[in-house]
Amino acid sequence: MQIEATTIDIGTSRPIVLLNTVDADELGAHPLDRVRIERNGRATTGIVKRTDKLVEPGTAGMTEPLHHIRGTVELTLAGTPRSVRYVRKKLDDIELHAAEHETIVQDIHENRLSDLELSAYVSAVYTNGLSLEETKHLTEAMTEVGQKLRWDASTVVDKHSIGGVAGNCVTPVVVAIVTEAGLTMPKTSSRAVTSPAGTADVMEVFCDVEFTTDDIVDIVTATNGCLVWGGGVDLSPVDDELIRAENPLSIDPPGLLMASVLSKKQSAGSTDVVIDMPYGEGAKVESLVAARELADDFKRVGEHLDMNIQCAITHGAEPIGDGIGPTLEARDVLAVLEGDGPESLRVKSVRLAEILLEHCGVDVSATEILESGRALAQFRRIVDAQNGDPDVTTADLQPGTETKTVTAARAGIVTRIDNRQISDLARRTGAPQDSDAGLVIHRTVRDRVDVGDPLYTLHAEATAKLEEAESLAGQLEPIRVRDEGEALVEHR
Amino acid sequence: MQIEATTIDIGTSRPIVLLNTVDADELGAHPLDRVRIERNGRATTGIVKRTDKLVEPGTAGMTEPLHHIRGTVELTLAGTPRSVRYVRKKLDDIELHAAEHETIVQDIHENRLSDLELSAYVSAVYTNGLSLEETKHLTEAMTEVGQKLRWDASTVVDKHSIGGVAGNCVTPVVVAIVTEAGLTMPKTSSRAVTSPAGTADVMEVFCDVEFTTDDIVDIVTATNGCLVWGGGVDLSPVDDELIRAENPLSIDPPGLLMASVLSKKQSAGSTDVVIDMPYGEGAKVESLVAARELADDFKRVGEHLDMNIQCAITHGAEPIGDGIGPTLEARDVLAVLEGDGPESLRVKSVRLAEILLEHCGVDVSATEILESGRALAQFRRIVDAQNGDPDVTTADLQPGTETKTVTAARAGIVTRIDNRQISDLARRTGAPQDSDAGLVIHRTVRDRVDVGDPLYTLHAEATAKLEEAESLAGQLEPIRVRDEGEALVEHR
Repeated sequence: MQIEATTIDIGTSRPIVLLNTVDADELGAHPLDRVRIERNGRATTGIVKRTDKLVEPGTAGMTEPLHHIRGTVELTLAGTPRSVRYVRKKLDDIELHAAEHETIVQDIHENRLSDLELSAYVSAVYTNGLSLEETKHLTEAMTEVGQKLRWDASTVVDKHSIGGVAGNCVTPVVVAIVTEAGLTMPKTSSRAVTSPAGTADVMEVFCDVEFTTDDIVDIVTATNGCLVWGGGVDLSPVDDELIRAENPLSIDPPGLLMASVLSKKQSAGSTDVVIDMPYGEGAKVESLVAARELADDFKRVGEHLDMNIQCAITHGAEPIGDGIGPTLEARDVLAVLEGDGPESLRVKSVRLAEILLEHCGVDVSATEILESGRALAQFRRIVDAQNGDPDVTTADLQPGTETKTVTAARAGIVTRIDNRQISDLARRTGAPQDSDAGLVIHRTVRDRVDVGDPLYTLHAEATAKLEEAESLAGQLEPIRVRDEGEALVEHR
Repeated sequence: MQIEATTIDIGTSRPIVLLNTVDADELGAHPLDRVRIERNGRATTGIVKRTDKLVEPGTAGMTEPLHHIRGTVELTLAGTPRSVRYVRKKLDDIELHAAEHETIVQDIHENRLSDLELSAYVSAVYTNGLSLEETKHLTEAMTEVGQKLRWDASTVVDKHSIGGVAGNCVTPVVVAIVTEAGLTMPKTSSRAVTSPAGTADVMEVFCDVEFTTDDIVDIVTATNGCLVWGGGVDLSPVDDELIRAENPLSIDPPGLLMASVLSKKQSAGSTDVVIDMPYGEGAKVESLVAARELADDFKRVGEHLDMNIQCAITHGAEPIGDGIGPTLEARDVLAVLEGDGPESLRVKSVRLAEILLEHCGVDVSATEILESGRALAQFRRIVDAQNGDPDVTTADLQPGTETKTVTAARAGIVTRIDNRQISDLARRTGAPQDSDAGLVIHRTVRDRVDVGDPLYTLHAEATAKLEEAESLAGQLEPIRVRDEGEALVEHR
């Protein structure tokens, strides 16, 4: 059917084609049916919604992802995308071929899968797993549909954390050290989705993080590195869709995790990657055995993709750094670069930098680069190149002034600091949207405390947010204090 | 936040709250976040979409399911629904408690789950299964959130087919026989979703099928039975949502199937139910062993719910009846009641009616009721009570006049008539939307045919639809003819 395309904004990032009921009936299109939209020989896919009022017969309302489509277009029913059959196969625990994963990735990329179908794929992978072969094929297919960065340097390093640890903002320190040592490290990071701060949110406290690919090349040419938001570059765009489907259920099956990380790195042109793999109670990987297995899998898939993967299995049962939230983590980062700051953040950043340096045959000391102030100077150069204030000091980084310090209700030993509860609390204060919100942890595990000793301080920008966080704090026990001689963790 | 509710039609059956970006930001609401909408002490849940233009700041556009909400309302972020945790448990293959399934059902009923979360639940049940205990709890929870019909009769019978067989419109004949024999059978049926005709679509050829609960009580009081559309009554409404999530992947896990059937029957006040369980190649249950297992499970769950379940394991590898499509199936039904019609439809209808009669201790002959014309007279009474023409004859039931007969390209034996391909073809002619469209099968399995013998005839209301069906027919082989002495089914 020939129809006039018009733009409409119905508040969705999905490619919706809003049709008058009259036209939808003539086309035989039910809600959520997919239509092929063709114009001048180029075709794309949209998802049908029907309306009696919002668009006139003869016109089709296109939402934002389809706003480039103007004028008269040819609409036809697209039928069920081929990959639905392969999703069903995966639900039936049958291994998929390379071409089948390619089709799934293409259909996700071109928005042919509904949320119901997309979630079924992710759930199937979660319950039935992906073989190493499947993971390789999925990774390659994901890289293929996105943008790819290319660099002159023969060695391009990168770092990734599989996440789950509150704070843990080691990346800016690692980038500063290894780029100062001469390695190329064009680092793209994410914003927080379910955590109180992503590395991009923390860097935004210092400088801009949204750049075009050309800008990024300029920054890296000038400084050897960058610390930018990955969402501004179209690397492995299908990854974002998969993550969108994983988030509501907080699932992250190993196959998708590997494909996600490695397709991003492959697209970014990385040759050598260190993966921070925190393990422990409450982390994504709960046992050392599981962490080692995942590390081996990562290395094997990496080999097939011509990438050298180093896995750093790290302590993941408690937060890294003291501050949680964009400004508070930025303050910790700068403090470490100034030669001070939380011990846990400093030690871990240096060790990850060492692994990259050693592995790439650069014979310098990460500790020396940090302690000499060269890493700080290099960090300031990158901040400057990203339009920030290179002379920023920790005194400039002030957290929210609405505060409440939670103290120990009993004397004893700190036996646990719970990542999940710490993150939930920091989000409740308003982080990451309120960049000055979050919390500061005053204790580490094994500290002895007395009644009334401060455990952590909540920071919010507004009283209402502080009250909400206080109310949640009353229900949680993010920092667990127990008697020294207590044999039990719990008695139920 | 206080906001003015307005109605808006953005072509979705989901309860969307369209907010101006300004308000959404103030509320902290991202796309797909759920909001609690409160007015006069009553609260419901909506799903946020954001827009820059379609609604003004200070107003919220409510889609159809929320059209009853008017005036000033209080909006608050609803947070993650509790049941998401239980969906995750099911993905991890952990058995759910009764209360957890109750929460899942309530959250689905109140639209708190996104499509991503809903599909994850259905996929988890598909891959990990439901225990009998879980199935019982799910069934009870599904019944609980819907309307419940109550009848004076101490015995209320019902019939259900698990589906997958083309044609198979036995229900009107069964209802006519058993209600004529004095049993109460208030039959609610579905419209086609993925098939060329549901029982409700077929009955609509004769009479009205959409009635209120009060109307249904009147019809059943007058005639002992009814043949109405179940969608007009709010029985086990969550079932419709689960089916919506199952359809794209064509999955129907046994636990959900049982909960679907039994919650509808329990809501309808049924005491004795016969379940038609077609098995065979291409049917939902492919082996006799699997059919027996499912039958035993059905009976066990039924027992727990105080319902007597009889399972009729039937031949499901080929269509039942000759006509496929609303009018064509209606013609077969009426022909059977007139003492003629397709053998397969007559024999199966009588046998299912016998099971109900025997089981309820009614000592009459179903065959006699049919052959004497008493079933026909009773069917006419029901048609009359549902505002149809009681004097309808088969001559009144004319299929689409755009026809094409497909003939045998070779001589041999009919070895298979494929339900799926027959259904796909009938849908391509326009059924069920075009009620006179569909096809008529001229052969049964084991028939001998010569080159040029008619195999089936396509009927459409419009030339374009006929051409589409012809084109599909050229790619399929819905009626398979093979040499008599051929040993192989296929050689690849």
